[in-house]
Amino acid sequence: MASESELLSALSAIFGATPHERVEIGIGDDGAVVTFPKSRGVNRAVLAADMAVEGVHFNREWSSLFDIGAKVTAANLADIFAMGGLPDFILVSAAVPKNFTVEQASELARGIVDEASKVGAVVVGGDLTRSETLVISLALFGSIKDPITRSGAKPGEYVIISDLPGKSAAGLELLRAGVHDERSAHHRRPIVDYKAAQDFALAGVSAMADVSDGLISELTHIAQASGVGIEIISEPGLDLHGGEDHIFVATISPQLPFPRQAITIGKVVLGKGVRVDGQPATHQGFEHF
Amino acid sequence: MASESELLSALSAIFGATPHERVEIGIGDDGAVVTFPKSRGVNRAVLAADMAVEGVHFNREWSSLFDIGAKVTAANLADIFAMGGLPDFILVSAAVPKNFTVEQASELARGIVDEASKVGAVVVGGDLTRSETLVISLALFGSIKDPITRSGAKPGEYVIISDLPGKSAAGLELLRAGVHDERSAHHRRPIVDYKAAQDFALAGVSAMADVSDGLISELTHIAQASGVGIEIISEPGLDLHGGEDHIFVATISPQLPFPRQAITIGKVVLGKGVRVDGQPATHQGFEHF
Repeated sequence: MASESELLSALSAIFGATPHERVEIGIGDDGAVVTFPKSRGVNRAVLAADMAVEGVHFNREWSSLFDIGAKVTAANLADIFAMGGLPDFILVSAAVPKNFTVEQASELARGIVDEASKVGAVVVGGDLTRSETLVISLALFGSIKDPITRSGAKPGEYVIISDLPGKSAAGLELLRAGVHDERSAHHRRPIVDYKAAQDFALAGVSAMADVSDGLISELTHIAQASGVGIEIISEPGLDLHGGEDHIFVATISPQLPFPRQAITIGKVVLGKGVRVDGQPATHQGFEHF
Repeated sequence: MASESELLSALSAIFGATPHERVEIGIGDDGAVVTFPKSRGVNRAVLAADMAVEGVHFNREWSSLFDIGAKVTAANLADIFAMGGLPDFILVSAAVPKNFTVEQASELARGIVDEASKVGAVVVGGDLTRSETLVISLALFGSIKDPITRSGAKPGEYVIISDLPGKSAAGLELLRAGVHDERSAHHRRPIVDYKAAQDFALAGVSAMADVSDGLISELTHIAQASGVGIEIISEPGLDLHGGEDHIFVATISPQLPFPRQAITIGKVVLGKGVRVDGQPATHQGFEHF
């Protein structure tokens, strides 16, 4: 059986086989950055997609369709903000079970609109079809000036996060134990601090990512893409592996004024890989695969 | 149980509730057309999405993964051309079964790239996840100068098509009967004449659509959106209901020189609805829903 990373590298090899002059950033970051010919007036756009499958990414026993719609939208919006972009337009494709009602479709749509409207993004189209299980697929199209990738981290910089991770993972544990309260609500619908990502971008962070698969997993990507090592100091409350929080992690030069929400958790160093309290971190991200 | 049109109108009402100054053409045509503020340099972009589900849109017994990838890509590219646009960038999201191999993923990806490269479009990103059944979801981003919608048909114009429809439906019948030949190949992978759509656009057609759900179904949409009637003369070889051909149907003023590939099949008249040989057409399009 093929692993996610084996499949992804095969796909990247095929899709990225022919370098394209208009693709500035292709597969491998939170989103893609493309350019348009000057004759058409456009400079850059940022694109990102997210797919959520019932039973894999969400559970209708625990989450309302409104929450599910909001959650998949939040995940996709976070990708655009993590690139330093602003989301503009959304395409929503959904495969729905035969017994799906107008009320259920409407609830899902309202959840999507509710989250999108927080940042002024608008649904402009999509596709609707049938399936045994509910599948929601979003594609986002945004504007971007200066893309922030995972590859810009430099030794001597600090590693900052926009909030403590682990709230979604902790909420999932509570839901599994039958607890439905404010804490478990974090899993049903994470509250994404889009403003923090904008502040990080404005502050001039050198690399940024959305922590969708756990902090260590994301830091490993940044270390690898930037060709650096990362040293993290563990602290109580700092969940290193829980996914789906959509907090933002970034690296920033010590010469720059830190953004207000920044929580410093470590440093960028020469070398490679991620270390926690001096020990090599085990890369066990939260995988939906 | 809700019908596709009931679900679609509920979704359109919610997604389109707040008119957005930057959305020129929203839900309800082959694609959406959006604008960007002049400060960002951009004028217009065209967006469209297509989702295909195993057992609903394709059958792995009959079609190779290469053909399936090419087919869903062709369907989505056709949407962009039907708007008068040019496809640029593609996001590919896929939910794949647990036993999906690297070879299978690669075959699917090569089918997508093969079709996309015919028109210079490039895959820039996407998402990969697990599901019981294979689901492929594409989102396309293209450039557009003058959008061609379904609403521009005017009485006195002619109705033209780029090729005879029904080849895919006929191929499906043959596949079901166990026949695997050149004709049944049209269902496995339709050959889309993108050039014809470009020629139609250059010729100055007033309305255009991609015939994905059968000719009568598409003409009904055009008649309704344009507030006109359409009179079709039936002819041998003119399949009025078979879907998935992705031929292009358009309306054009008799004063304009007709594009080379144009096959004239009828006229736009005052009134409403579609008539075939003077009789109201039964609207029985090919539905995947």
